[in-house]
Amino acid sequence: MVVILKNNSQKEQTQQLIEWLEGLGLGVHTVNGHYQTILGLLGDTSKVDIDMVKGLEIVEDVKRISEPYKNANRKFHPDDTVIDINGVKVGGGSFCYIAGPCSIESPEQIATIAKEVKAAGATLLRGGAFKPRTSPYAFQGMRGEGIDLLLHAKEETGLPIVTEIMDAAHLPLFENVDVVQVGARNMQNFELLKALGKTNKVVLLKRGLSSTLQELLMSAEYIMAGGNEKVILCERGIRTFETATRNTLDLSAIPMLKSMTHLPIVIDPSHATGIAKLVKPMAMAAAAAGADGLMIEVHNNPEKALCDGPQSLTPDAFADVVKCTNKIIEAIK
Amino acid sequence: MVVILKNNSQKEQTQQLIEWLEGLGLGVHTVNGHYQTILGLLGDTSKVDIDMVKGLEIVEDVKRISEPYKNANRKFHPDDTVIDINGVKVGGGSFCYIAGPCSIESPEQIATIAKEVKAAGATLLRGGAFKPRTSPYAFQGMRGEGIDLLLHAKEETGLPIVTEIMDAAHLPLFENVDVVQVGARNMQNFELLKALGKTNKVVLLKRGLSSTLQELLMSAEYIMAGGNEKVILCERGIRTFETATRNTLDLSAIPMLKSMTHLPIVIDPSHATGIAKLVKPMAMAAAAAGADGLMIEVHNNPEKALCDGPQSLTPDAFADVVKCTNKIIEAIK
Amino acid sequence: MVVILKNNSQKEQTQQLIEWLEGLGLGVHTVNGHYQTILGLLGDTSKVDIDMVKGLEIVEDVKRISEPYKNANRKFHPDDTVIDINGVKVGGGSFCYIAGPCSIESPEQIATIAKEVKAAGATLLRGGAFKPRTSPYAFQGMRGEGIDLLLHAKEETGLPIVTEIMDAAHLPLFENVDVVQVGARNMQNFELLKALGKTNKVVLLKRGLSSTLQELLMSAEYIMAGGNEKVILCERGIRTFETATRNTLDLSAIPMLKSMTHLPIVIDPSHATGIAKLVKPMAMAAAAAGADGLMIEVHNNPEKALCDGPQSLTPDAFADVVKCTNKIIEAIK
Amino acid sequence: MVVILKNNSQKEQTQQLIEWLEGLGLGVHTVNGHYQTILGLLGDTSKVDIDMVKGLEIVEDVKRISEPYKNANRKFHPDDTVIDINGVKVGGGSFCYIAGPCSIESPEQIATIAKEVKAAGATLLRGGAFKPRTSPYAFQGMRGEGIDLLLHAKEETGLPIVTEIMDAAHLPLFENVDVVQVGARNMQNFELLKALGKTNKVVLLKRGLSSTLQELLMSAEYIMAGGNEKVILCERGIRTFETATRNTLDLSAIPMLKSMTHLPIVIDPSHATGIAKLVKPMAMAAAAAGADGLMIEVHNNPEKALCDGPQSLTPDAFADVVKCTNKIIEAIK
Repeated sequence: MVVILKNNSQKEQTQQLIEWLEGLGLGVHTVNGHYQTILGLLGDTSKVDIDMVKGLEIVEDVKRISEPYKNANRKFHPDDTVIDINGVKVGGGSFCYIAGPCSIESPEQIATIAKEVKAAGATLLRGGAFKPRTSPYAFQGMRGEGIDLLLHAKEETGLPIVTEIMDAAHLPLFENVDVVQVGARNMQNFELLKALGKTNKVVLLKRGLSSTLQELLMSAEYIMAGGNEKVILCERGIRTFETATRNTLDLSAIPMLKSMTHLPIVIDPSHATGIAKLVKPMAMAAAAAGADGLMIEVHNNPEKALCDGPQSLTPDAFADVVKCTNKIIEAIK
Repeated sequence: MVVILKNNSQKEQTQQLIEWLEGLGLGVHTVNGHYQTILGLLGDTSKVDIDMVKGLEIVEDVKRISEPYKNANRKFHPDDTVIDINGVKVGGGSFCYIAGPCSIESPEQIATIAKEVKAAGATLLRGGAFKPRTSPYAFQGMRGEGIDLLLHAKEETGLPIVTEIMDAAHLPLFENVDVVQVGARNMQNFELLKALGKTNKVVLLKRGLSSTLQELLMSAEYIMAGGNEKVILCERGIRTFETATRNTLDLSAIPMLKSMTHLPIVIDPSHATGIAKLVKPMAMAAAAAGADGLMIEVHNNPEKALCDGPQSLTPDAFADVVKCTNKIIEAIK
Repeated sequence: MVVILKNNSQKEQTQQLIEWLEGLGLGVHTVNGHYQTILGLLGDTSKVDIDMVKGLEIVEDVKRISEPYKNANRKFHPDDTVIDINGVKVGGGSFCYIAGPCSIESPEQIATIAKEVKAAGATLLRGGAFKPRTSPYAFQGMRGEGIDLLLHAKEETGLPIVTEIMDAAHLPLFENVDVVQVGARNMQNFELLKALGKTNKVVLLKRGLSSTLQELLMSAEYIMAGGNEKVILCERGIRTFETATRNTLDLSAIPMLKSMTHLPIVIDPSHATGIAKLVKPMAMAAAAAGADGLMIEVHNNPEKALCDGPQSLTPDAFADVVKCTNKIIEAIK
Repeated sequence: MVVILKNNSQKEQTQQLIEWLEGLGLGVHTVNGHYQTILGLLGDTSKVDIDMVKGLEIVEDVKRISEPYKNANRKFHPDDTVIDINGVKVGGGSFCYIAGPCSIESPEQIATIAKEVKAAGATLLRGGAFKPRTSPYAFQGMRGEGIDLLLHAKEETGLPIVTEIMDAAHLPLFENVDVVQVGARNMQNFELLKALGKTNKVVLLKRGLSSTLQELLMSAEYIMAGGNEKVILCERGIRTFETATRNTLDLSAIPMLKSMTHLPIVIDPSHATGIAKLVKPMAMAAAAAGADGLMIEVHNNPEKALCDGPQSLTPDAFADVVKCTNKIIEAIK
């Protein structure tokens, strides 16, 4: 960490700052330039609050050199993490397809769709039991009952299951869930992250709507710092000024995250774009950019197709996505 | 709600959609234009998922006419809500000053600062016991012990207290807290909002970093739908491309929210700008724009001033903010 | 266009509005709902200022149904536009590689690099003669002299050339330039767009840093309305809150624009990411998403590699990008 | 400027970089830390391209310490610049009201409104002759004829006039215009800025929709570097994710810019919010935050009020804004 002092910083204040930093157990290396004094900090600076130091009267700027994430950092863990989910591998060259409906609605719905997405190429089954909805008047999900239906579908198809958690208090309901999803709105629900860090569950952590890649890794770090290293990152679109798509899918996050961390990265083109016809080209682009998998919303009610989300594909359309994405994966091998 | 169909929408699909909408208990009024068919929906449309309908093959666009928030809507509640916090009124012309340190650090610290901010004009005392920190390695707050210290300071000064909650499971610790704060990162932690809706606590709800004003009101609606109407909204800066300030303080939110809702609105210029010298001009601007109060970070350790946040004021600087803001309030009466 | 009136709109004002709209030559179809009155406008609404109508006292909202762009609209021109640039086709299945240095620096530099990018697979040569720089103290380009050097490189290699224009007054210097580029900062320099609309030059129009896709098409429309239909669109990253990459490359713009317009779309991963190692994965992703070409910065001074931009590739690295991108193109055929 | 090298940077490359930097006339001070090597650059670093150096293989990061703007920098010019516009002073404690219609439409319109805004308290008259419109099919302004009408209104009222320029080629038409406005979309039209730098016109420079404060100052620097120091900055809203207001008015820009530069700063609440009822509270807030003036859209056609913009005030409403804003100015004196 480098602390750049202001031109006019007085000796006494500078000395006070140096002592305070040394009090934190850091080595302080002072460089007196013609115009500026620079302090180089040596040691474990991960506990220094960069915003706090930046705000000091005598400080011009602070530059963190080493990243504040340790467990998630590729520097200290050069090999890709490969996560084994009941035999389905994610990361390190294994590409996964997570598919299923937005919400679990009935035993028939989830059972049927589970079989259909499996036949179409899905390797994991997703379905929402707890639904974070902007409106308190909207359907909030079947909750515990929905998880039971999902577990039943898992039994029937053999597909490991992924479903979202919204509160640490619900953890007991997730006992047999293979992958616990943390949604974008809860990416910085730190109490939930801490609780998941104490479990041995695979966690699929979605990037917040306006979270930087570093913040995403810091949230992964919350889970990993608790001892649970099984974290899968998920980019699902960020909020920008553009209104043509629901969010803006940031595919450069894939190679960027790959250079920062060893954790696997999956892409959710359904939520990112909010438009069914964009799912296939974005899925193919994600594979071309080096993603470790896809998370795609699939509906199965032809007679009620009207009610399905704008971002949802039919099982047939999903099968086509898998086929075309596999061509990309084959081509870049 | 108005549903605009695509040019080429077929009769059968249109009929299916109309039947589905009628099945939701809505009246459907069809308008066949030369080029377009428009469906006007009558009745309670708050349960219709606008994104879902938008995504239908035959739908060009959907326009919600009535707002999806009911309890928070000024249309149905024209008078300002005035919240009484142990005798301190917020809203309807009463201006409040919420002041105190970012984190509670020790009995002496919070006791001293409580007296100082009271003397300087504060009407409510704030202090962080549970601290949402980006890094798991940063100080996470004194938690329950911090609340005890805050309660002690309340006893000594008579100032009602405001402190942040991070998980519904911690609610019992907040029994004697006057105002429970929901932080920006938890604005869409819907399980927490629901839990607060079942209490009779005053809730200070901070706008998320990338939340629209309508989303803020929908989160207030979560609390109010549970029966708790004592919600204070707080604008604390939104995330934009600009890096000169930590966030961009959206002061137009004040008159805009005033036209949308009857709830009181306070402004937090400390977190919004992240720069101490900007707190005073932004506090004055907030008052001029019609805010119902301010939330300001104040530190009190002159001998440890180095360690205080970049956005924190000394008690003296805070007294100056109060004095100058009061002049504005006087001028616009 | 649909105009939704406020609940309490008075008859007289409504009548005035209807008359004014009819005065613009539009048919007005009035729908009196239980709660709302809606006006359906028929005829050419492209001249109606939507913001102006939205602002009227009695208007709740306005919804444009038909897009305000005509010439660029795929609805009226279903087939892909294919632009022939001295034998190099862009659009309709032909993939182009535009490559070259950020700035033209010397006769040797541009001559050498032109040969190298041609050998590596480039189909068009780019090079900056006029350089839009944030700082007035930075190198502003070789201007007219640079264009001469570029023309010389064109003669030697046979590659058609692409270079940026910054002012309509410079047009005479572009007489022999094959493709005139309009940079992101000039996307809404309407006087420049109008001037280009009166030429028969191929125009490569870059999306502005915070321009929506519709605004990009409206700027293309400025050129096309003047009679010049040879417009190539270019996505080069948008400005968001994320700082890990210079800008955020919006690859969903490719399929989205493809549905809105018949014009070809190329992607500039160099400027979008600002990071050399991200150019290859983003180039491959762009091809997978259906782009019509790439624009890539290549430098050629091994002995001065230090001075080259962070986003620039060596000719060898560029050859690798072409090879890998061609695999994607082959796979998706 | 501080250049932070990567951990593993090799001696030879480092030496090459140092020589290259010295070749630019800079002093290079090397600091070898335990983990990192840091280069401190001394001398005029304004010509160093920070993005270029950042991109070098061996460079971890670059931190500019001195700002790249010189003429606009308050450090080198501590006193407020006061600009005299035919007797109307802007800056240094003098508050100006720039008012008038969005577009000049007819001799009667501009003549009438000029008298009305003068009576209401305006100190400068604005009116658009050249209109930057998103659509080529929208009214593009009366151009030269509009300027003549504006000059006539100036003669009749004595108010100095402000009007927008869109192309340097139109400069001769602006001979008698007092203040030449550069619109948000042209803030980085560098050829236009350079041309204005060679005139002795007062320039009102609007912040681009997604321009940082530093970029705004760099554009001012373009004008000032040419010898013209009469620049007034104007904040008019930035583009964010929020859609409740047309743009987000960034009032923290006022105190922030005041600390960075000595140039006057005016606020345009009309364009920023796009909503007439928000103009007054935002005008008052701007004054409270320390602005040097306001730019407000006023219309005057009561019989055609329907046609006026959503952001426009009547002369009476403008008079009320002046009265209330003057109370704020009085209060903070």
